[in-house]
Amino acid sequence: MNKQLIFVKRPIGFPEPDIWRLEKNDIPDLKDGEFLVQNHYVSLDPAMRGWMNANRSYIEPIKVGDVMRAGTIGKIVKVKNNPKFKVGDCVTGFGGVQQYCITNGSNWHKVDPSIAPMPMYLSTLGMTGMTAYFGILEVGKIKFGDVVLVSGAAGAVGSVVGQIAKLKGCTVVGIAGGKDKCKYLLDELGFDEAIDYKSENVIKELKVKCPNGIDVYFDNVGGEILEYALAILRLHARIVICGAISQYNNTSKMKGPANYMSLLVNRATMQGMVVFDYAKDYQKAALEMSQWIKEGKLKSKEDIYEGIENFYDTFKRLFTGEKKGKLILKVIE
Amino acid sequence: MNKQLIFVKRPIGFPEPDIWRLEKNDIPDLKDGEFLVQNHYVSLDPAMRGWMNANRSYIEPIKVGDVMRAGTIGKIVKVKNNPKFKVGDCVTGFGGVQQYCITNGSNWHKVDPSIAPMPMYLSTLGMTGMTAYFGILEVGKIKFGDVVLVSGAAGAVGSVVGQIAKLKGCTVVGIAGGKDKCKYLLDELGFDEAIDYKSENVIKELKVKCPNGIDVYFDNVGGEILEYALAILRLHARIVICGAISQYNNTSKMKGPANYMSLLVNRATMQGMVVFDYAKDYQKAALEMSQWIKEGKLKSKEDIYEGIENFYDTFKRLFTGEKKGKLILKVIE
Repeated sequence: MNKQLIFVKRPIGFPEPDIWRLEKNDIPDLKDGEFLVQNHYVSLDPAMRGWMNANRSYIEPIKVGDVMRAGTIGKIVKVKNNPKFKVGDCVTGFGGVQQYCITNGSNWHKVDPSIAPMPMYLSTLGMTGMTAYFGILEVGKIKFGDVVLVSGAAGAVGSVVGQIAKLKGCTVVGIAGGKDKCKYLLDELGFDEAIDYKSENVIKELKVKCPNGIDVYFDNVGGEILEYALAILRLHARIVICGAISQYNNTSKMKGPANYMSLLVNRATMQGMVVFDYAKDYQKAALEMSQWIKEGKLKSKEDIYEGIENFYDTFKRLFTGEKKGKLILKVIE
Repeated sequence: MNKQLIFVKRPIGFPEPDIWRLEKNDIPDLKDGEFLVQNHYVSLDPAMRGWMNANRSYIEPIKVGDVMRAGTIGKIVKVKNNPKFKVGDCVTGFGGVQQYCITNGSNWHKVDPSIAPMPMYLSTLGMTGMTAYFGILEVGKIKFGDVVLVSGAAGAVGSVVGQIAKLKGCTVVGIAGGKDKCKYLLDELGFDEAIDYKSENVIKELKVKCPNGIDVYFDNVGGEILEYALAILRLHARIVICGAISQYNNTSKMKGPANYMSLLVNRATMQGMVVFDYAKDYQKAALEMSQWIKEGKLKSKEDIYEGIENFYDTFKRLFTGEKKGKLILKVIE
């Protein structure tokens, strides 16, 4: 039997538990070319909230009645005439919030669990890490000596962004929610400065901690913090638009940055990114990042919860911030 | 005697006539290295409104008590020991809204009035044309076949932007205020489509006239039209932020584009520009543009009013839109 989390209605504002229903279903027979994956871990990402809306974004919305979409990692337990995959292979893809999934392997990748533990392939060596890597390097175009500001800095993407920027010789300032997270940024991840948006006056702290402005802002949150960043851009600054988690559960119209004309004043650029565009270079990036991890230059942190029944409580943490690092749900029993 | 328009107080909202005072003053003696220019024409630009605010933008604010800043063209009538300039030279620079100005020549350029009439050096062959040229080519990065949307399309910058985009093989859609202006875009400037924001439903017309979206949006106006453009971006689209005339006289907070996350969905870029950054290439651009004008491929339109006493009535036309092409005031009597 397969426990599956079915998406039963589109949320308005913050998703309530009745947006999903947990079902136990039989596993259908495989067709030629398909294989059956037992999902071990499910990735939880703020982007999931966007996929639940009816309007098309960078990928199709989740259909009502379908299994909740999610990135997963697991092992193949059965194969029907697919020479590229075999039983026992460790594979990652969009397996959904369920214990088993069937696929023909398109957009699935084999990974080696002897190099890194499985959850890390959903975090630093997965989409999350890829987003950070290509976002800060290709879109942010960081150079040695740049001042880099990151919001959601203790989060899965932000923490990797900041560490990569440090590796490349930048001064890195992180904005995070809470004293613990700020301490984590400074003591464990080597950020130069941290600002606690929950207890500090962010504008004031930015002026103190980035007295000469910023060259790059990596935005995971949108809202007011995007405006604060726009207000302290240096000439030719780059803003990487990676997310806007402060706005995802809004029921009113989203807030645009009122001071976007700072882009003109500072000849600056604001550019959106979606990690899928860099798929052809994932391998190379993962190799470089796993080397950094091995050398102790990059820390990968996963916050793992257990049980598909606990999906909702775990999902909520994405937005309440009660997590540290990449949020993952173990669904294998 | 020199008639000078003095900036006497900072406006709130739309400038009233009492923001300036016309004075008649003696012309001081020249110091070594200086020369005296008789200003013939003064350039009127939406950017002037920004220079009147107290906060620093891409250049220092105009100081209260100073002559009103403006680009000018005129002829040298007196020189004191400056070997680079001589009496009779035709020169352009920031000469201000006055009949004479004294300068040491820094940031002034000699031009040849036998190649083009003087006002054209304030429009297509001046800052205005340079803004259009570098904005659409360097920031907009137009390619053959792109769909290009321009707002303020009948204005000094917009009309040149659209014509250059046509020259480069783009499909060009212009947004302008009024049926006459739209007719002008289509019949005289060769735009493919025109939308009258005063009498038409812009969103609806954009869907009809850009059915597959846009690759480049050249923004002169900001506000709602920027949001409409964001809503129809194609993948990897570029937005050139050149101005936001709809917002310059706001007394309330400026409006940011609520749907800026379209930049993420479409991996698009929004970049600000200031023409001064391209100063080293002005000569080359002016040469190319004057060649296009000579060949009849580019039309330069100046709307010239007379008399420094009529500055205010002329200035107002920048914002009421009662003008066609580049707004210029003749100040020589």
